[in-house]
Amino acid sequence: MALADELFREFRSMSVSEFFRKNAAMLGYTGRIRSLTTIVHEGVTNAIDAGEECGKLPNVYIRIENLGDGGRYRITIEDNASGIPEKYIPEVFGKMLAGSKAHRNMQSRGQQGLGISGAVLFCQTSSGKPVRVISSTGEKGIIAEVMIDVEKNKGKVSKKEEFDPKGWMGTRVEMEAKGVSYNRSKYGAFNYLRLTSLANPHVQIELIEPDGTKVLFERVTEELPKPPKEVKPHPYGITADDLLRLAREKGGERKSLKTILVKELSRFSDKRVRELKEKMALILLSRKLETQIEDLDKYLSEIQDEEEKRRIKKIYSGFLSQAAKILRKEARYLNWEEADLIVNAFSRMKLLAPPTEGLSPIGEENISRTMKAVLNPEFVACVTRPPKTYRGGIPFQVEVGIAYGGQVDEEGIEVFRFANRTPLLFDRGGCAITEAVKSIDWKRYGIDPNKDKVALLVNIVSVHIPYTSTGKQAIADVPEISKEIRLAVMEVARKLMRYVKRKKREMEKEAKMKALLKYVPEVAKAMSRLTGASEEEIETELSELISKKYLSSEDFSEEEREEAIKKEEKVILISNGGGLDEGSRKEAETTRE
Amino acid sequence: MALADELFREFRSMSVSEFFRKNAAMLGYTGRIRSLTTIVHEGVTNAIDAGEECGKLPNVYIRIENLGDGGRYRITIEDNASGIPEKYIPEVFGKMLAGSKAHRNMQSRGQQGLGISGAVLFCQTSSGKPVRVISSTGEKGIIAEVMIDVEKNKGKVSKKEEFDPKGWMGTRVEMEAKGVSYNRSKYGAFNYLRLTSLANPHVQIELIEPDGTKVLFERVTEELPKPPKEVKPHPYGITADDLLRLAREKGGERKSLKTILVKELSRFSDKRVRELKEKMALILLSRKLETQIEDLDKYLSEIQDEEEKRRIKKIYSGFLSQAAKILRKEARYLNWEEADLIVNAFSRMKLLAPPTEGLSPIGEENISRTMKAVLNPEFVACVTRPPKTYRGGIPFQVEVGIAYGGQVDEEGIEVFRFANRTPLLFDRGGCAITEAVKSIDWKRYGIDPNKDKVALLVNIVSVHIPYTSTGKQAIADVPEISKEIRLAVMEVARKLMRYVKRKKREMEKEAKMKALLKYVPEVAKAMSRLTGASEEEIETELSELISKKYLSSEDFSEEEREEAIKKEEKVILISNGGGLDEGSRKEAETTRE
Repeated sequence: MALADELFREFRSMSVSEFFRKNAAMLGYTGRIRSLTTIVHEGVTNAIDAGEECGKLPNVYIRIENLGDGGRYRITIEDNASGIPEKYIPEVFGKMLAGSKAHRNMQSRGQQGLGISGAVLFCQTSSGKPVRVISSTGEKGIIAEVMIDVEKNKGKVSKKEEFDPKGWMGTRVEMEAKGVSYNRSKYGAFNYLRLTSLANPHVQIELIEPDGTKVLFERVTEELPKPPKEVKPHPYGITADDLLRLAREKGGERKSLKTILVKELSRFSDKRVRELKEKMALILLSRKLETQIEDLDKYLSEIQDEEEKRRIKKIYSGFLSQAAKILRKEARYLNWEEADLIVNAFSRMKLLAPPTEGLSPIGEENISRTMKAVLNPEFVACVTRPPKTYRGGIPFQVEVGIAYGGQVDEEGIEVFRFANRTPLLFDRGGCAITEAVKSIDWKRYGIDPNKDKVALLVNIVSVHIPYTSTGKQAIADVPEISKEIRLAVMEVARKLMRYVKRKKREMEKEAKMKALLKYVPEVAKAMSRLTGASEEEIETELSELISKKYLSSEDFSEEEREEAIKKEEKVILISNGGGLDEGSRKEAETTRE
Repeated sequence: MALADELFREFRSMSVSEFFRKNAAMLGYTGRIRSLTTIVHEGVTNAIDAGEECGKLPNVYIRIENLGDGGRYRITIEDNASGIPEKYIPEVFGKMLAGSKAHRNMQSRGQQGLGISGAVLFCQTSSGKPVRVISSTGEKGIIAEVMIDVEKNKGKVSKKEEFDPKGWMGTRVEMEAKGVSYNRSKYGAFNYLRLTSLANPHVQIELIEPDGTKVLFERVTEELPKPPKEVKPHPYGITADDLLRLAREKGGERKSLKTILVKELSRFSDKRVRELKEKMALILLSRKLETQIEDLDKYLSEIQDEEEKRRIKKIYSGFLSQAAKILRKEARYLNWEEADLIVNAFSRMKLLAPPTEGLSPIGEENISRTMKAVLNPEFVACVTRPPKTYRGGIPFQVEVGIAYGGQVDEEGIEVFRFANRTPLLFDRGGCAITEAVKSIDWKRYGIDPNKDKVALLVNIVSVHIPYTSTGKQAIADVPEISKEIRLAVMEVARKLMRYVKRKKREMEKEAKMKALLKYVPEVAKAMSRLTGASEEEIETELSELISKKYLSSEDFSEEEREEAIKKEEKVILISNGGGLDEGSRKEAETTRE
């Protein structure tokens, strides 16, 4: 007795904030550059989500200041969205696992409730400073300083005052972190914002770098992506456990289970209830008779003995009433076995795939424009695949762009990964996108994966991105998603193959033509001697003949012509204009609306 | 106003259990095989930790039963440790982020408090079944069925009864999961246990596979690894935030800050308090004078003006009293600026490195034996590097074994990763070990990383392994750790290089010798004709001469001889003996003690 009690004296529980205080690396706070990029990422995804949710074209302002003293930085992020109601400020910034997105079945950049509160936690543990929040919902402005009470996982507001926003709406967050760093490397905040801008052409991003350089990632379309829509869970995608929770959560006030199913699931209407009951009864009958029955009539028709047929029909109709009884009962009293039975019955029904109009991809045109602007390649092709679902009912969609030659940086295949239009800069190795690209036999497409210069842009959108970790930088290897990535990559690879082959053929023809043209003068001379015609004339005619033969026959198709590169204006305008100071900034804010 | 309020109506918080219910992949529950392996991993790490903690040689029994019905499995894991006191049973199995390891600064396999409770969560959400726990602390046995109340993150005990353990001590956990699978692949539970056994030669593991096959991974040493020891945090390794928390947690009952520092930090004794005060005063003086002063005497000696010298001395002594006052104050009233000042002062003191005797590596001999047993290679070399610290004060140690040729599976470099003797099977791509191995220029060591058959075993032990994610399958890229891995790998690679070069030279010599020997008969014939001596005699003598020259000169060194491979008995005994049934199993349990 004493031994176990002794050993368990140290048993304790901790809050989620305490856990992530100890394991900040799990939220992406590892290394100086990555830590700063992660702070910017959390602020910017919130800013863009907020703008889109209130139907405004997002303007995001980021200022990064180096305060010296061993990597102490101030990071300011401001949006033009709807602002945060006063009472939610401590929750948004000071409570981990709290948010408005995690439990809603819709596409958004954030989904965990660990983002901005994680940034606040990292800032306060590294610099000791609270986060300063300035927010206005239109009529009243609030300035508040928030810290996390780590033991309790609760927001603490240390200072608070009101101000007159003079019509300004939005949220400005000022965070101070220590032990971080800023640069323009691949993993730095600059590149993160650049890629964010590319995948979000409707967003205007203004960055003031520590040396005062002002960078404007300009908005290139005034069109807001269609707003993300909440999608009800699909019967194919829910587990018995999900159904139990749904029944308990929504099943107050004596609502029947049937009502809950029809109301809370997508693609399941009143008309399908009868079929559900039949499938439930059939499963119960199969269990009872210890044989798998898919079709009752067919099963009965194979039985000779009329007595036996009647017996089975009677059992079946008993199970039918049992199923009806389950569906009539109060939802909150549903038990596991019943839920399991219903989910099993769902899987035997033919149901429409879940609605996918809530998904908002970047679109082929935008991807193409993006890749041309950044890489100035020789060839670009894009595909946005039709929406699919994984685990039975979670909608997702894959889009891929491929670029070849030009300014594609290095030899080999470079992959730009995005999830819900958010760039994934880290944890490349463990990501399903990387694996899918690697698994393709590039030689089959006439591409040497070590020598040819190829860039891929892969974006996955979903109401629930299956990240491998709380750091949200890699996508889990879900078979349905991996397959779609492969198919999409293969589709653009085929287009590239056609281009490369055509190009090669053209080059071969040109070489042949040139070889033939070399003999023209000599041939012309000989023919002139034989025929007496003018040597120049024969030479010209021969040359034209050869050129015509080799240039006219095969030409690039309309599609390929379209995909071929025109010169595009750069998306990024860089002005070294010292940046705005705080005063003129404030002015700009109040006049902006 | 209405807009923001509207948008925030959906704002909610969730418990950590709810979060991981939705994001089970983040705990390793992704894919059928991996999910079952993860359950086994959580149970087995707890079992071994528990055995070691109570000073017993761990015996771990695992039974995996296929219950049919679409991947429904029962997983039973039993240990011979101290048992769990009754009141802790709901907490251990039913509360996430609770445990006895996370807040203790010592090497253990578990460290998060997300392991076994995560397995219980996955089981109940997939199968609807509670976990069945049978535990005895010696006098009283408890059988309990535990589920997690997901909304509250609390354990719920549904059934509980007592039994007479008849002296048996230990814990047996029976879990039921759905949608999982078992096989003997690289990622399956079998391989996980095989690798666990290899890195833990003091542990006996008995596995009953679903088809009844009984596999015994035998204990090969009766020596328990030295027990892990709790290490106090080192002044170099703590942040201002850590110090504040320490002062608040331990600083009850009017304890002075000084007392806390001396008592709760390692390598910081009463004798160092004076020096700390001086460093604190020096930092304050530097700030005041806006210049960096490392050595006060030196700084003063460079000042000519006596008046100025006196003035500075006076300021300094004022700061000295200020520092003394901070250290005298009640610990719980410490503020951030003071904590920051102290941590800064720590970093300017020369302190002994933290004690590392708490670390428990596998050891070179065990690694060598392991690699020989599994791979039967041509050559093996191992190194256990001396303990180091990262982030200033967290002790860790790296060990590496290299094997070459023989049954090393594939061409190229295969890496077996371990953390605190626990095999890491997944998330290879994002792991610092993989990156470190990749970063090595193998050609410099005469090794072709794509063609040669090389296997590496890398084990990292630490009081806090910096995992990249809650799934605990990859180690974060902490510069100090990555450097040590590289150094260790380079050390064994050098040994291998010497072997390979020697081997190559030997082969070249043999080729030369053979070439020369070919001419012997002809030369002998010619010489016999010239000298009249017997042809055979000359031939024999010439052959001996050549052989002697080429075989005697360079030989494998003593060290290399030791590292060369002798045949070893296999660690794994496989008997197809149908497995024990429940009855005889129970019998075995009660008679075991």
